[in-house]
Amino acid sequence: MALHQPQNAEKKDSPLEDLADLLKEDLTAVNAVILEKLTSDVPLIPQIAAYLIAAGGKRIRPVLTLASATALGGNMERARNLAAIVEFIHSATLLHDDVVDESAERRGKASANEVFGNQASVLVGDFLFSRSFQLMVDDGSLKTLRILADASAIIAEGEVLQLQMQGNLETGWDTYIKMIGAKTAALFAAACEVGAVVSDVSSDVEKAMHDYGYNLGLAFQIADDMLDYNADKAALGKQIGDDFREGKISAPVLLAYAKATPEEKEFWQRTISKGEQCDGDLETAQSQIEKYGVIAEGIEKAAEYSAKAQKTLEILPPSPVKPMLEQLLTYVIERSA
Amino acid sequence: MALHQPQNAEKKDSPLEDLADLLKEDLTAVNAVILEKLTSDVPLIPQIAAYLIAAGGKRIRPVLTLASATALGGNMERARNLAAIVEFIHSATLLHDDVVDESAERRGKASANEVFGNQASVLVGDFLFSRSFQLMVDDGSLKTLRILADASAIIAEGEVLQLQMQGNLETGWDTYIKMIGAKTAALFAAACEVGAVVSDVSSDVEKAMHDYGYNLGLAFQIADDMLDYNADKAALGKQIGDDFREGKISAPVLLAYAKATPEEKEFWQRTISKGEQCDGDLETAQSQIEKYGVIAEGIEKAAEYSAKAQKTLEILPPSPVKPMLEQLLTYVIERSA
Repeated sequence: MALHQPQNAEKKDSPLEDLADLLKEDLTAVNAVILEKLTSDVPLIPQIAAYLIAAGGKRIRPVLTLASATALGGNMERARNLAAIVEFIHSATLLHDDVVDESAERRGKASANEVFGNQASVLVGDFLFSRSFQLMVDDGSLKTLRILADASAIIAEGEVLQLQMQGNLETGWDTYIKMIGAKTAALFAAACEVGAVVSDVSSDVEKAMHDYGYNLGLAFQIADDMLDYNADKAALGKQIGDDFREGKISAPVLLAYAKATPEEKEFWQRTISKGEQCDGDLETAQSQIEKYGVIAEGIEKAAEYSAKAQKTLEILPPSPVKPMLEQLLTYVIERSA
Repeated sequence: MALHQPQNAEKKDSPLEDLADLLKEDLTAVNAVILEKLTSDVPLIPQIAAYLIAAGGKRIRPVLTLASATALGGNMERARNLAAIVEFIHSATLLHDDVVDESAERRGKASANEVFGNQASVLVGDFLFSRSFQLMVDDGSLKTLRILADASAIIAEGEVLQLQMQGNLETGWDTYIKMIGAKTAALFAAACEVGAVVSDVSSDVEKAMHDYGYNLGLAFQIADDMLDYNADKAALGKQIGDDFREGKISAPVLLAYAKATPEEKEFWQRTISKGEQCDGDLETAQSQIEKYGVIAEGIEKAAEYSAKAQKTLEILPPSPVKPMLEQLLTYVIERSA
């Protein structure tokens, strides 16, 4: 299909919105695939799945698949199906994540487990996983199957690793990167890579798109971790403090803890490791993070991964998508800084 | 590989043990594949998986794959890998089942969720699912992938359907059969069918093996449901009353409820629908089931599916495995009667 031109070059949307705009027709088709493939004569399945998926979210992963295929002149019909698959895998992990974290909210509304119960969330998550594999078989390529099956297994490993790290403030930065690499970046990488695979490009280009997604995913997750403690963003209506309340071992906590005095370490041990929190603790955590310049430090680390991703894009031919993929690297960081 | 002869024709083992004996070398290889594919550098994964899988169980599903391939002269290397995949899928569903049912025991020992927690059970279940798909990609056949991906989705649908039936004593027998068809029989069917697919046989034979597994699975599950209420089996050291305590809508409950007087219906509503149980309730349930001859009625229904399965076996060439597959149909029922 023909590439779309940006409809309004003046407006100052985020590059993610620009991409969604450019790929509008494809994204509409992806949504149609998602809804069509959620049908089941067991009513609870489309009900929960629609609650979660239709409710939206940024759709960054399917956008990456579509953008990658568009940048490389790929088969957009396959790209649309693969984008839906990537969103199914992501949605399945969200359902299980919220059960494991006992989250009450997701994207500012009650989480699926809160509304439908943990049991339904576990089982509908399993259904979405299985359905995603059926869709991969429909794609008919062992290559995309391999990429997405590997990503799924890596995500599951990352989730278990995160569980094992629970409450452990001595977790090393390398282990943290390994965890978010598995939990977040692996699916970003797979989303980009399958977009390249449906474009019949060289294995170098496939690898470049994989690496772009992987490094973008790391930058995105580090920055996202920072956002949860950035008081300045609270003014913008962002949800702040969820990770803190859940006692999550995240980038800002690890960076602040590494610099903390023995007394300050006790604060983190009480609130994060033991999960004993009272009024004012979130503010103390934020002031600790401010005191040690943790946001800036985290953003710098995220920027290193963005820079790596930037380099991998050099292999791409010029296209309207290419600059947007570049801008996305800055955007995922700037929204947290 | 060459077929093994039964090592001791005199002994009166169950046909499942006879099959396991005949397929000993293959089963050992399957166990080796399982252990090898459970490796992960996240220690909790092999730990939980080994707790569940290495602990054993009857291994009836992998035996079916191996038996099917052996009966049809199939590629035993592929059959071994597919048998391991089938066991992985089964194990993943067991982990999630126990979380959903809040089970404290499995096969007479503490369940994985009891030992390692619900969170770990959910996530390691996800890992086993994903790993099973990686192994399917290794098999390299879109045909076996389709069969196993479809079975996985059907199982998940069946689990959600079971959840929706929870506490509903008005569930029709057809809905119950649909539920166990999805939850249990679909994987039995897939296990047998992939054994045929690696044997390069006609689609009629593939379908026959699918139908054999499906009907065997239905007979197995109905009989297994009966076993849980059969007081005579308690004397044999069998675990009795688990389904009752969990308030599960199972075959004997539905059959007894259908015949119950209004007063007796109240008993079932209190114990199963409301889950309000006290001392002596299991005994009352068992006496209700005895009063209405429910065990015999259930066994008769199971026997109808066994008879269907028996007919599908006629297409098989003569082999040492064939009579064992026939005897298995009687055995799964007789152990409950």
